[in-house]
Amino acid sequence: MQRRTFVTSAGAGLVAAAVASPAVAQSMPEIRWRLTSSFPKSLDTLFGVSEVFAKRLAEITDNRFIIQPFAAGEIVPGLQALDAVSNGTVEACHTASYYYVGKDPTFTFGTALPFGMNPRQQNAWFIEGGGTDLLNEFYKSYNVTAISCGNTGTQMGGWFRKEIRTVEDLRGLKFRVGGFAGRILTRLGVVPQQIAGGDIYPALEKGTIDAAEWVGPHDDEKLGFAKVAPYYYYPGWWEGGAQVQTFANIAKWETLPKHYKAAYEAAAYQAGTWMQARYDASNPAALRRLVAQGTQLRPFTLEVMEACYKQAHELYAEVAAQNPWFKRVLDHTLAFRNEEYLWFQVAEYSFDSFMIRMRARSN
Amino acid sequence: MQRRTFVTSAGAGLVAAAVASPAVAQSMPEIRWRLTSSFPKSLDTLFGVSEVFAKRLAEITDNRFIIQPFAAGEIVPGLQALDAVSNGTVEACHTASYYYVGKDPTFTFGTALPFGMNPRQQNAWFIEGGGTDLLNEFYKSYNVTAISCGNTGTQMGGWFRKEIRTVEDLRGLKFRVGGFAGRILTRLGVVPQQIAGGDIYPALEKGTIDAAEWVGPHDDEKLGFAKVAPYYYYPGWWEGGAQVQTFANIAKWETLPKHYKAAYEAAAYQAGTWMQARYDASNPAALRRLVAQGTQLRPFTLEVMEACYKQAHELYAEVAAQNPWFKRVLDHTLAFRNEEYLWFQVAEYSFDSFMIRMRARSN
Repeated sequence: MQRRTFVTSAGAGLVAAAVASPAVAQSMPEIRWRLTSSFPKSLDTLFGVSEVFAKRLAEITDNRFIIQPFAAGEIVPGLQALDAVSNGTVEACHTASYYYVGKDPTFTFGTALPFGMNPRQQNAWFIEGGGTDLLNEFYKSYNVTAISCGNTGTQMGGWFRKEIRTVEDLRGLKFRVGGFAGRILTRLGVVPQQIAGGDIYPALEKGTIDAAEWVGPHDDEKLGFAKVAPYYYYPGWWEGGAQVQTFANIAKWETLPKHYKAAYEAAAYQAGTWMQARYDASNPAALRRLVAQGTQLRPFTLEVMEACYKQAHELYAEVAAQNPWFKRVLDHTLAFRNEEYLWFQVAEYSFDSFMIRMRARSN
Repeated sequence: MQRRTFVTSAGAGLVAAAVASPAVAQSMPEIRWRLTSSFPKSLDTLFGVSEVFAKRLAEITDNRFIIQPFAAGEIVPGLQALDAVSNGTVEACHTASYYYVGKDPTFTFGTALPFGMNPRQQNAWFIEGGGTDLLNEFYKSYNVTAISCGNTGTQMGGWFRKEIRTVEDLRGLKFRVGGFAGRILTRLGVVPQQIAGGDIYPALEKGTIDAAEWVGPHDDEKLGFAKVAPYYYYPGWWEGGAQVQTFANIAKWETLPKHYKAAYEAAAYQAGTWMQARYDASNPAALRRLVAQGTQLRPFTLEVMEACYKQAHELYAEVAAQNPWFKRVLDHTLAFRNEEYLWFQVAEYSFDSFMIRMRARSN
C-alpha cells in the first residue's frame, strides 16, 4: 500500500512533468547527418575545420545533432561534394564553391573572385553586405543552401620551376590552378590544369606540369612542392580571401528545428574563425622552414599583375554580358570591394605598413 | 473505473517516459542571466553586439538560456562592468578589458597592446596562439573568465583641433584616449583624459580637451566629433585590432551545463564576427560623408609614430620589470606579433597593396 501510494504520487508528478516534457523531447530530437569534405584528411586545417564544426555542433546540442565528416573520396570524390548534397546522397558538404565554376561561373563568388576582396572584406560582404542572401538565392536551383565556414587568408601564388618575370614567361606554362583563375590565365597563354590536392606533387615532380598553387606555407609544406619547384610566388591574386563553406541540402535543412539551424550556423562560424586563426598562426613558422631549406620567395612583377588584372576584368565583362546571375553578383561585389579598399587603405593599411617597417628594422 | 484505468495506464506510460525524460529536462534548464555592457545603446555596433549575442544564444537554446543585455549606466556605469561581474552583481558583461589597466596593466592585452597586432593576428593569438588560456589564468584572481566577442578593426587616431606634425605638437595636449596608450603619450607631454563615450563631445566642444579618439568613422560620425575638430588622424596605433569580450563570473559559469557553455562560446564568436563585419561594411560610407563635410584626413607623421613606438617599448620594459604577469603576457605577445608580420608582409600585404594601387588608378 505504501508502495502503491508512492507510485500514485510519482504518477501525479509525472503527469505534471508530461505537460512540459513532450515539448522538451521534441525540441531535442536525435539527428545524424553525413558531411562529405572536398579535402583529404592530411590537410589538418582544410579538412580539420569539418571536424571542429561537427564537434562544436555536437557539444552545443548535447550530442543530439551529430554530423559525421568524411574526407574526399570516402563517399564521393572531393570535387563532387556539391553534387552529392544537391542530389541528396549526403545531407551536407564542406567545400570551396569555386570548384563548381564549370556548372556556372557564378560559383566563383562564394570562394573568391580573382582580384576581389581580402578575407575581412569577404566576411563583411557575406554578413553585412548582402552576399549570403544573394548567393543563397543563386544556389536554390541546385537544392543547396550555404553557410560560410572558414577562410584561408590571402593565398600564395604557387610554386614555379622557373622564374616568371614577364607576361611572355607565362606563355605555354602548364599550371595547376584552382577555380576561375584558369580562364583568366588562358588569355595570357597559360595552360591551366585541374588536379586534386593529393595528385599535384607527382605531376610537378614528373614535369607533367610546370607550376602549381595550393594555399599557403602551412599546407604547401605538407604537400612537398618545395622539393620540386624552387620559386614561391605571391600574392595569389585569384584568392585574396578564399572562403570555404558548408552546403546543406535544402529539403533536409528545412526538416531541422529552428534552434538546430541556429546551432549549425553558430558552430560553422566558430569553426570558420578557428580555421583562419589556425592558418594565421601556423603559416609563419612554415614559411621560415621553407625559406631555410632553399625556397626562393618572389613577388609577381607589376607587369604580370597588371596584365592579369586587365584580362580578369575583360573576362568579367564578357561573362556578365552572357550570364545575368554572374552580372548581378559581379556588380554587387565590385561596388562593395571598391568601397572596402577606400576604408582599408586608411587605418588598416597604414598600421600594417608601419608595423612591417619597424619589424624589418629590428631584424 | 474507466477513468481510473486510464490514469493507471497513463501512469505506466509515464514511468517509461520518466526513464528518458529527466535527462532531457535536466539537459535544457531555464536560465536567465543579466549582462551589463560598457557601451551606450546609441552605438549600434559596440552595444549591438551584446544584443546579437543574446539573441543567438536564445535561438540556439530554444529560448531556455536567456541573457538580457543592459546598456552602460542601467545597472552600473560603463567602466565598472568588470567589477559588477567580479563581485557577482551580474553574471556577465561585455566590455573592453583595457578599461581596467588601472587595476593591472596586464588588462591591456585582452583588448590591444599599443603597436601590437592587427585584428586577424589578435584572433590567431587568442585562438591558436595560447592567448585565451593565458589571459584566463590571469583573470582567475578577479573571479572572471573571458570569451572574445568582437573586434573593431584597426582604429582611427582620433580628432584634433590643430594639426600634429611633430612630437613637439603633442606637448600639453589634453587628449581623451582609451586604455594603456595614455601612459605612453604622457612620456611625450600629452595630458591623457579618461572620459566615457557619451561625454566626449561636450568636452571637445567646450575646449576642455584638445583632442579625442573613439573608434572609427561609423561610431565617430554618430558622436559628432567632426563638428568641433577638423583633423582626423590615422592609424590608432594603440588599437591595431581592438578586441572586446564577454566576461562571465566564474562561479556562475561553472553552474552551466557543458552544452550551454559551448552554446555561449559559439554565440559569442558568431556575434563577434558580425561586429567586425558591421564595422567593415559601414565605415567606408561614414568616411565618405565625413570627408564630404570637410573632415581633413591626416596620417600621423613618421616622426610622431616612431617616437610613440620607442616610448611604448621603453614603457613595456619598465612595467615588465615590476610586474611578472605583464612580463609573461608581453613576451608571449611580442614573439607572436613579430612572427605574424613576417607572414602578413608577404601574401596579405602585397595583395592589399596592389588592390589599393589599382583602386586609386580607377578614380
